[in-house]
Amino acid sequence: MGGIRTVLVANRGEIAVRIIRTCAELGIATVAVYSEADAESAAVRMADRAYRIGPGPAKRSYLHIPAIVEAARATGADAIHPGYGFLSENPDFAEVCEAEGFVFIGAPAAVMADLGDKSTARTLMSAAGLPLLPGSREPLDSAEEANALADEIGYPVIIKAVAGGGGRGMRVVRDSGDFAQAWRDTRANASAVFGDGRLYVERYLDSARHVEVQILADHHGTVLHLGARDCSLQRRHQKLVEESPAPGLSDELLARIGETAVRGAASVGYVGAGTFEFLLDPQGRFYFMEVNCRLQVEHPVTEMVTGIDLVAQQLRIAAGLPLDLPDDIAVPRGVAIECRINAEDPAREFAPAPGTLTECVLPGGPFVRVDTHVESGYTIPPHYDSLLAKVIVWGEDRSAAITRMRRALAETRIDGAGVATTARFLHDVLDHPRFVTAEHDTALIGALTEPVSVGS
Amino acid sequence: MGGIRTVLVANRGEIAVRIIRTCAELGIATVAVYSEADAESAAVRMADRAYRIGPGPAKRSYLHIPAIVEAARATGADAIHPGYGFLSENPDFAEVCEAEGFVFIGAPAAVMADLGDKSTARTLMSAAGLPLLPGSREPLDSAEEANALADEIGYPVIIKAVAGGGGRGMRVVRDSGDFAQAWRDTRANASAVFGDGRLYVERYLDSARHVEVQILADHHGTVLHLGARDCSLQRRHQKLVEESPAPGLSDELLARIGETAVRGAASVGYVGAGTFEFLLDPQGRFYFMEVNCRLQVEHPVTEMVTGIDLVAQQLRIAAGLPLDLPDDIAVPRGVAIECRINAEDPAREFAPAPGTLTECVLPGGPFVRVDTHVESGYTIPPHYDSLLAKVIVWGEDRSAAITRMRRALAETRIDGAGVATTARFLHDVLDHPRFVTAEHDTALIGALTEPVSVGS
Repeated sequence: MGGIRTVLVANRGEIAVRIIRTCAELGIATVAVYSEADAESAAVRMADRAYRIGPGPAKRSYLHIPAIVEAARATGADAIHPGYGFLSENPDFAEVCEAEGFVFIGAPAAVMADLGDKSTARTLMSAAGLPLLPGSREPLDSAEEANALADEIGYPVIIKAVAGGGGRGMRVVRDSGDFAQAWRDTRANASAVFGDGRLYVERYLDSARHVEVQILADHHGTVLHLGARDCSLQRRHQKLVEESPAPGLSDELLARIGETAVRGAASVGYVGAGTFEFLLDPQGRFYFMEVNCRLQVEHPVTEMVTGIDLVAQQLRIAAGLPLDLPDDIAVPRGVAIECRINAEDPAREFAPAPGTLTECVLPGGPFVRVDTHVESGYTIPPHYDSLLAKVIVWGEDRSAAITRMRRALAETRIDGAGVATTARFLHDVLDHPRFVTAEHDTALIGALTEPVSVGS
Repeated sequence: MGGIRTVLVANRGEIAVRIIRTCAELGIATVAVYSEADAESAAVRMADRAYRIGPGPAKRSYLHIPAIVEAARATGADAIHPGYGFLSENPDFAEVCEAEGFVFIGAPAAVMADLGDKSTARTLMSAAGLPLLPGSREPLDSAEEANALADEIGYPVIIKAVAGGGGRGMRVVRDSGDFAQAWRDTRANASAVFGDGRLYVERYLDSARHVEVQILADHHGTVLHLGARDCSLQRRHQKLVEESPAPGLSDELLARIGETAVRGAASVGYVGAGTFEFLLDPQGRFYFMEVNCRLQVEHPVTEMVTGIDLVAQQLRIAAGLPLDLPDDIAVPRGVAIECRINAEDPAREFAPAPGTLTECVLPGGPFVRVDTHVESGYTIPPHYDSLLAKVIVWGEDRSAAITRMRRALAETRIDGAGVATTARFLHDVLDHPRFVTAEHDTALIGALTEPVSVGS
């Protein structure tokens, strides 16, 4: 496609498999890089070539830029797809790729740097006219200054790391008296995790929905959106269930959110696939939260209602080709839902529950898609996230999609010594009256799993 | 649904699993019946209840009407779904079900009897104005009479058993001198296999496409079609690859074939899901062949381009409810292709190649559906057909669907001592220039697999 003949996939797990599949369909050769812990992985087996980049810990393999660049050079790759997580939103990595002559399949490094800094992103989007929650535009220097601002905004507020994202580096504060301690804890955590202790504060919505817009933008000035996803079913800011279109919203509101995201993307010269995340309050007001400059875990629900292969579009954009989509993308067909099957034990506060899978039966049949890298006999390495499989279903309407997902989850049988998964938990959550009526919000899972409120 | 609370599935393999899945989504309980050879089957595991009906050979289990009726009585089933094959087109079975108070999920027994008799079906459809190939309307008594008619029609002709169907009980004759022997052989075979030696003769098209129309008809007078499937890739009249919509035909021709099928179904008071099969010659003339009064193996391709669950519609019709379909059913979305993965060895003239599966990896990811009852460790019983799995893909156009199917088949890994499958063979067939350009016909696979023509 264009000048792209060989893509190195700088990731692992289900997303590596996902990317390899589309490359195979497009006649593009693939290189899987792998850590020692992933030597037997599905991506290694499915790619045209595989290249070992280091030991199990991600810092020494999937996060180790020189090793990945060396792999690309050694295998003659033209382009690098970072997937999600790891280096996918690292502007340094994007810059190194381009400097070394590899096409980085993602947003331009400078745009990624601006939007990855949550504080700069807020400033830019505010300037583009996007609605923001009350809060600080710039990172705040002192706990006192921040506390004063929080008092002014009114509680609850949320303290966020400038370098955070994807649900990490944030803390809710409900009372001015708790603010100083929370600030210190969040700063220490952000410094340790992101190497960047800068923080900002904004109003926290207790009852809100997480609605995000899928964007595609090419190098020829076309910016468009593929509708909205609802990802309100979260546990501690980690998404568990996602769907598209966002349910229970008027066509007018959905169009307005979509156009807002397009305006935001166009204002910064965005190129590639990306996601604009918003919070939607019960009054139908929405507020810009952040941009994810990469493919999302939940991208398949958009694919299922639009018929568009988002990875193929990413490759097309990276190859410098103009977007070429059907005319009817504004009209999603039916409803798609995704559930993340994680190796976590709901009975033990979702603690990771890895091990070797002695049984692994995933669902199938009408209108069911499974994206996974695991099978019977697979051993979950301790180094990475706990995502085992994504189960995605389509239904002619939301009710049909929910019952289909419950059927699919009931079919799922994953077992092994010490292994537990979220499949049964999610099966039951989908039956919750507030989810069934689309009156759920980001607090629902917390209310189910943490009956005693701990203030955050 | 309606008065249907428990469905007994009078079948096995992937189609039993398929039916159980939709029942689960609709909140209908299921009973799997099974032979001793299928005690460990997926359907047994997935159904709410399982009931053993006899030994392995189908005559003593899946074809044994008293055993199935007893199972329905013992388990309190309200309705019986026969799947395809076995008793699905047996009017006696349909009659017994109804007499015993069970809803038969299929066409009315009398309609099935008329259409199952290929000679009566031709007479009825001719009367309804459907185009037929030149041939006998009534079964022919003597070889001499038949030979004279064949000479009049012109060769090649095809001799067909009145009780045949699904590719069985037919023989092509290319020369008058071969006719008498072929007649005797076909009669002997039909008597042995169907217990009915009656035969008829019609013109045989060497170069034709198999195009069939999916019909739905309810008890309230609504008859409609869900577009056409092309099933021209056949080996010895057995379909290997199917797709929808039928490619390379004008919208006008597709509409005319669809309307013709609806007219035929309405003329006989058809109720249920059914398929009208036509042969299409290179000049765009189409001829009625037969009606299949049941769900087809290839029904998923129609489901993927229409978004309609055909088993759910069968249940709805059987429950006496009116059809309730979206307005846009006339506009299929994209293209779907199905490949049948059979346990047959292409290197040994597609001889059955059963055994125990030591490895069974089936494809997944974007726009791929798999319907199967097998997994690693499964032992293929010797008693039944060789279908292991159906791989169905969707693409925005035919070219995308073909490359996706080739990707999916390349992912498929099924192995075991003595086990061979058609997956790699089909992967290569999909690359054939005549298939890629939709200029294939029912003779293509034969030409590939049987380079020396044997006259039939």
